[in-house]
Amino acid sequence: MVSVNELAFSLIEEILDYEEDYEEEYRINVETLDNGATIIDCGVNVPGGYTAGILYTQVCMGGLADVDVYLDTVKNIPLTFIKEYTDHPALACLGCQKAGWQIKVGDYFAMGSGPARALALKPKKTYELLDYEDDAEYAIIALESDRLPDEKVVEYIAKECDVEPEDVYVLVAPTASIVGSVQISGRIIEMALYRMAELGYDVNRTLSATGRCPIAPVLGDNLKAMGATNDSLLYYGSVYLTVDGYSEELDAIASCESSDYGRPFYEIFKDADYDFYKIDPKLFAPAHVAITDMRTGKTRVHGKLNADVLLQSYDLS
Amino acid sequence: MVSVNELAFSLIEEILDYEEDYEEEYRINVETLDNGATIIDCGVNVPGGYTAGILYTQVCMGGLADVDVYLDTVKNIPLTFIKEYTDHPALACLGCQKAGWQIKVGDYFAMGSGPARALALKPKKTYELLDYEDDAEYAIIALESDRLPDEKVVEYIAKECDVEPEDVYVLVAPTASIVGSVQISGRIIEMALYRMAELGYDVNRTLSATGRCPIAPVLGDNLKAMGATNDSLLYYGSVYLTVDGYSEELDAIASCESSDYGRPFYEIFKDADYDFYKIDPKLFAPAHVAITDMRTGKTRVHGKLNADVLLQSYDLS
Amino acid sequence: MVSVNELAFSLIEEILDYEEDYEEEYRINVETLDNGATIIDCGVNVPGGYTAGILYTQVCMGGLADVDVYLDTVKNIPLTFIKEYTDHPALACLGCQKAGWQIKVGDYFAMGSGPARALALKPKKTYELLDYEDDAEYAIIALESDRLPDEKVVEYIAKECDVEPEDVYVLVAPTASIVGSVQISGRIIEMALYRMAELGYDVNRTLSATGRCPIAPVLGDNLKAMGATNDSLLYYGSVYLTVDGYSEELDAIASCESSDYGRPFYEIFKDADYDFYKIDPKLFAPAHVAITDMRTGKTRVHGKLNADVLLQSYDLS
Repeated sequence: MVSVNELAFSLIEEILDYEEDYEEEYRINVETLDNGATIIDCGVNVPGGYTAGILYTQVCMGGLADVDVYLDTVKNIPLTFIKEYTDHPALACLGCQKAGWQIKVGDYFAMGSGPARALALKPKKTYELLDYEDDAEYAIIALESDRLPDEKVVEYIAKECDVEPEDVYVLVAPTASIVGSVQISGRIIEMALYRMAELGYDVNRTLSATGRCPIAPVLGDNLKAMGATNDSLLYYGSVYLTVDGYSEELDAIASCESSDYGRPFYEIFKDADYDFYKIDPKLFAPAHVAITDMRTGKTRVHGKLNADVLLQSYDLS
Repeated sequence: MVSVNELAFSLIEEILDYEEDYEEEYRINVETLDNGATIIDCGVNVPGGYTAGILYTQVCMGGLADVDVYLDTVKNIPLTFIKEYTDHPALACLGCQKAGWQIKVGDYFAMGSGPARALALKPKKTYELLDYEDDAEYAIIALESDRLPDEKVVEYIAKECDVEPEDVYVLVAPTASIVGSVQISGRIIEMALYRMAELGYDVNRTLSATGRCPIAPVLGDNLKAMGATNDSLLYYGSVYLTVDGYSEELDAIASCESSDYGRPFYEIFKDADYDFYKIDPKLFAPAHVAITDMRTGKTRVHGKLNADVLLQSYDLS
Repeated sequence: MVSVNELAFSLIEEILDYEEDYEEEYRINVETLDNGATIIDCGVNVPGGYTAGILYTQVCMGGLADVDVYLDTVKNIPLTFIKEYTDHPALACLGCQKAGWQIKVGDYFAMGSGPARALALKPKKTYELLDYEDDAEYAIIALESDRLPDEKVVEYIAKECDVEPEDVYVLVAPTASIVGSVQISGRIIEMALYRMAELGYDVNRTLSATGRCPIAPVLGDNLKAMGATNDSLLYYGSVYLTVDGYSEELDAIASCESSDYGRPFYEIFKDADYDFYKIDPKLFAPAHVAITDMRTGKTRVHGKLNADVLLQSYDLS
């Protein structure tokens, strides 16, 4: 199979070669640490933007997705949306994009996404399920954080990925940034795949997928941004999937199946005393999903869009 | 004029050069026959996907169109749509994309599309009408079929195109496949051009065109797939065209002008004893068309979208 | 900062290298004047098209925007729309795209757009405001005109830009042409930035922007075309903007704030005895704008779409 780290690297290669030009165009900052690792700041000390957000999302998906942004409306209010498609939903979303690697080094903490996970096998059972391991000589990782990682963080990543620190490339963006908003809404197909796996469905039977999701306005603080970006997915994200064999457990794929459904995520989180484990996990799901079973030709539709909760979350109601 | 085979070849050149990478990424299979011809399987023994479907459609249109897919809704149901534009509607659609070449060799049968038709002049009157002939040294053809062609099929194609078998490149996808669904919905502008020609309008007066069409879910068998893919065009495909001089015969361009309009294609076909010639040919038309006459600035709108019949055809009502 | 002329040049470089191929594909004409200047005719003696229109728009925006066209509907009528985003709204729109340079040489007159303005500093206060000057060795300019410029026009441009005439590249398209319609609708974000500047807002605080606007059907004469293309922006153009600090003067950003709002531009212009200065300048504004203030997370929505006036202007009511 293709190397998702190589594919993702090909997306950033030209930026690294013509660093100065692209830094200005993408409003990013490329920096080399003492150990040779490359840090691409997409929103910590720089503004970032849609171009960087699209790149970040495609890198997160191991280069196996096409991504774009466009203006559409929610209840007649102009907002930016993300659109994407992939012919490798399981590998691109679960094998790469999922924030499945907790990076904790000293007082640095961030959730790690992207193809580097397929080198470090974080978590291992995902790669057993997908029957995929990458063996690229460089590692590309994306960190959702408002701090840039230092040499020690990179050394940990390098070691886990079995590559040299100078072969580690890290993209970083805070939740409360344009790139943060874009890349989280870019997880709309991942949200579906994650739920499918949770429901016990064999995600290797997913074929192609398209997704669409509004991009949350950048909210001032990271906690509120976490709420609004999640609500984009839970209350207004749509996915269309083709699968090779439908199973009835997928009937529960949409977020409205959750007992916590119906209020902005920030409120649910607050009422749960800011403890993720007190939230009904069925909430972490796309709002609206259609699934076509190629074997029978039958298409099932689950869930719905909820403009009211979305606009409340966006502070627009 | 440009060579449509050369333009189409430039779209597949990199895939041929880095075959192994792209086979996995596009979920296609590239194979060389004993006589040197290249067969690109986009859905017979492989799953294919949106990436391959977009490529197939662009190749069919002689490289003279821009094509993309995205998620939109029909009566609030998420589905994948195709969007496209071309500045050469007559050449791209009638001169290339139209399935105007019946390939019958032994027991192999397929409808042939794509720029190779402009070498073999299939049919000749189309190229007289367009005042266009290609003279490229290679031939690119697309076959809608659930079987891959063998050496003899390629030899026939090569001979008709006046090229060597090793210079023939064949893309193949069944009707009932993701690429099949994509490439048929990708014929939405062609549908308009075909009707214009049938109505006696001089298609050389068409300038630029945009089109949009839902992509049918992949249905289990080819006959039902034929129905659903056709209905995408007939009941929910839209085209906007700019022409240099409108003529009143174009008032009858939309599918609703047909006496057979109003039921899924599969039912009409069944009631016609599976005989195409018993179906009112006016049915093979886009659902909704707007045409601007540059000379007068007047825009005419014909036809309408019909979500009810579409969803019935998609087994979604 | 990046050179907007270099970025724009990279968009046309391949066209200049493979002139003959692209002339046919884009339906444009590339011509070298006696003084070595390059004139790219996108609609004067050639039809042009969407491909050329997208290129023209991107060149106008100094290569700092992503642009595409697609089919959407207004009151259920299929029309072509433009979509775009930029991470440099102030520089791309006010520093490049704005038609801020009146070119008058002998009896030749045209409004000049594009990155060449950032060399000639037309007008100077714009570049003081943006704190930007380009120093590229070539100048790329776009002229909205139904006549091609001659050597003398180019010599004037070259002199003002401090480059040699052979280093001047001019794109030309009339208002009443496909490229004209595309590139004017492509000014939808510029319309917002222009109004922001007029309202006294510091445009350097704008971050990223997305825009959408219908593309006017090509109307027969330039005066009516001017009306329809303007109405696309004023009555149906949408913008979403992220800013670093909102100010209340922006509450008046939308076109509906104008006392002249509510009728097709052509009628307003006629009633003003074809005198621009008699029209309320607040009319030159986007129809619908949402602005998110990153500091507070608050999003404001101003204006509205007006399909009735738009379709009246498009001669479609």
